[in-house]
Amino acid sequence: MRRIVIGVIGPGEGAGQKEMDDAALIGELVAKAGWAVLTGGRVAGVMGAAAKGARAAGGLTIGLLPTPDTLGASPAVDIVLATGLGEARNAVIALSANACVVCGMNAGTASEVALAIRAKKPIVLLRADETTVKFFRSLDADVVRVAMSAGEAIEQLRGVLMSGAHSL
Amino acid sequence: MRRIVIGVIGPGEGAGQKEMDDAALIGELVAKAGWAVLTGGRVAGVMGAAAKGARAAGGLTIGLLPTPDTLGASPAVDIVLATGLGEARNAVIALSANACVVCGMNAGTASEVALAIRAKKPIVLLRADETTVKFFRSLDADVVRVAMSAGEAIEQLRGVLMSGAHSL
Amino acid sequence: MRRIVIGVIGPGEGAGQKEMDDAALIGELVAKAGWAVLTGGRVAGVMGAAAKGARAAGGLTIGLLPTPDTLGASPAVDIVLATGLGEARNAVIALSANACVVCGMNAGTASEVALAIRAKKPIVLLRADETTVKFFRSLDADVVRVAMSAGEAIEQLRGVLMSGAHSL
Amino acid sequence: MRRIVIGVIGPGEGAGQKEMDDAALIGELVAKAGWAVLTGGRVAGVMGAAAKGARAAGGLTIGLLPTPDTLGASPAVDIVLATGLGEARNAVIALSANACVVCGMNAGTASEVALAIRAKKPIVLLRADETTVKFFRSLDADVVRVAMSAGEAIEQLRGVLMSGAHSL
Repeated sequence: MRRIVIGVIGPGEGAGQKEMDDAALIGELVAKAGWAVLTGGRVAGVMGAAAKGARAAGGLTIGLLPTPDTLGASPAVDIVLATGLGEARNAVIALSANACVVCGMNAGTASEVALAIRAKKPIVLLRADETTVKFFRSLDADVVRVAMSAGEAIEQLRGVLMSGAHSL
Repeated sequence: MRRIVIGVIGPGEGAGQKEMDDAALIGELVAKAGWAVLTGGRVAGVMGAAAKGARAAGGLTIGLLPTPDTLGASPAVDIVLATGLGEARNAVIALSANACVVCGMNAGTASEVALAIRAKKPIVLLRADETTVKFFRSLDADVVRVAMSAGEAIEQLRGVLMSGAHSL
Repeated sequence: MRRIVIGVIGPGEGAGQKEMDDAALIGELVAKAGWAVLTGGRVAGVMGAAAKGARAAGGLTIGLLPTPDTLGASPAVDIVLATGLGEARNAVIALSANACVVCGMNAGTASEVALAIRAKKPIVLLRADETTVKFFRSLDADVVRVAMSAGEAIEQLRGVLMSGAHSL
Repeated sequence: MRRIVIGVIGPGEGAGQKEMDDAALIGELVAKAGWAVLTGGRVAGVMGAAAKGARAAGGLTIGLLPTPDTLGASPAVDIVLATGLGEARNAVIALSANACVVCGMNAGTASEVALAIRAKKPIVLLRADETTVKFFRSLDADVVRVAMSAGEAIEQLRGVLMSGAHSL
């Protein structure tokens, strides 16, 4: 059965504890909703935390690594795909996710969000600052949502995925 | 738990019945071995047959589509990843599979086999003709194997994956 | 002789007249500086205007199209490279340019800017609004510059390219 | 003016002297025909030799590197594009060249030839062995040509590019 795939994206090495805690909880809630978690595959930061949270809840986890090999992959990723594309794999994450939750921000994450907006994918920015929200909403207000907790983010995903206003 | 991922590759629209029957059986046997099946995602030809065979046997199926959307995806693929990369997604399939089984041949398939050889991935050519075998063996005899049945191909995969002479 | 390559990026179909005028002048000034212009290759908007401006001034123009064919390519591009990568070609533009000038903004452009910042490339935002500047500076203040005219943008490029603080 | 772009492809580090001599002469003749040379960008082997030959004859040279930086780029390449795509850049070379000349063979080169055949690009195999010719002709006999000298390869390119049976 075709699985709904939720991208959980955010900083790697530079992630803060709050962002990783959020990502872990998002991973858990996505798994409990029966959806698969898609990350950038690495063990670092938000990627690793989201995969770990989903795995602990019995979810299916997929990782699209930038590297041509699996060094640095999160041990909590079930399906490790070594793309070898470098940062161009961000475009693949953006297109492959049915929707994305964003925990934290850096340049790589910003590119994923922009590419997901370009592809008209629903995006939930979790606890994003005002400038970040304002900037991404200026690109396409229709697809960019904001949540102040992991639970709220999941409710937003549920709403948008059930509305059928997305492409599965 | 990190899943072993087996690429099952071959022609789409131009596939013959024998190749699709082989692919379906390979899909089934890969699933029964507990491995995930990775294909080019489309419903056509070898891709669709391999996914269908694996799905029927309760296996996990992943598809890396060349398109930016999921039109044309096989309904038997659980995790549909729309790469938007066109034929460059062949490089991602080659790097992401732990090993590949090849059913039939055309230009796209040849590129995947060549890229998998480049990445030193074990490859089993199923019922390939003499020229095809000779050509790919001339590129790297160490990684190119030949099988005359789906069962033999799976035995070869089992051997090479257990030998640890591959990168997981 | 290795040519310095300047990416001129911005919206395609949705570009405004002011942005296209800016892009044409940037193209002209880049050409007069002896640098090559790199665009997304299409005739639409900022891409087409930049190539046209550079061509008229005798410059060399290179275009990295998202499509696998050359339909829609600007007639002012000398070297048309059909990548077939879709939006993943934005990552190639970001890595291939020695520096970028940005005229206008949309989701695709934002992804290119973010990827260029990720790669530590000098970026000049031309006439960008306050939110855009603030957002991209929050990602990496060191590489993001702002200019209020095409001439000023070129001066900024000249400064940064001569400082040697960039990777050629 | 839109330039005709000829891919000159073949092994890097493993190239033989004869292949590099051929590549250098191909580069020279392509340049003298007024066409641009496209290579994989690196200084090694056929790539470097083709760029050097073209440069010496006053031609324009473009290189699509697999790496995200320009380390290892041939000094004879005018336009160095660091794709960061790894071997997926082979797909970009195949799509971007109007036609290809192939000097020598290995797994990476084979993937480029297969992808160029997939894209229906005219290909000239220079001094290829019988198995290689037979294999690639089995994929698509219409686009695969064979030449026994650099001069003959250029004549074949001239014929096919003038026939208009290619996509520019």
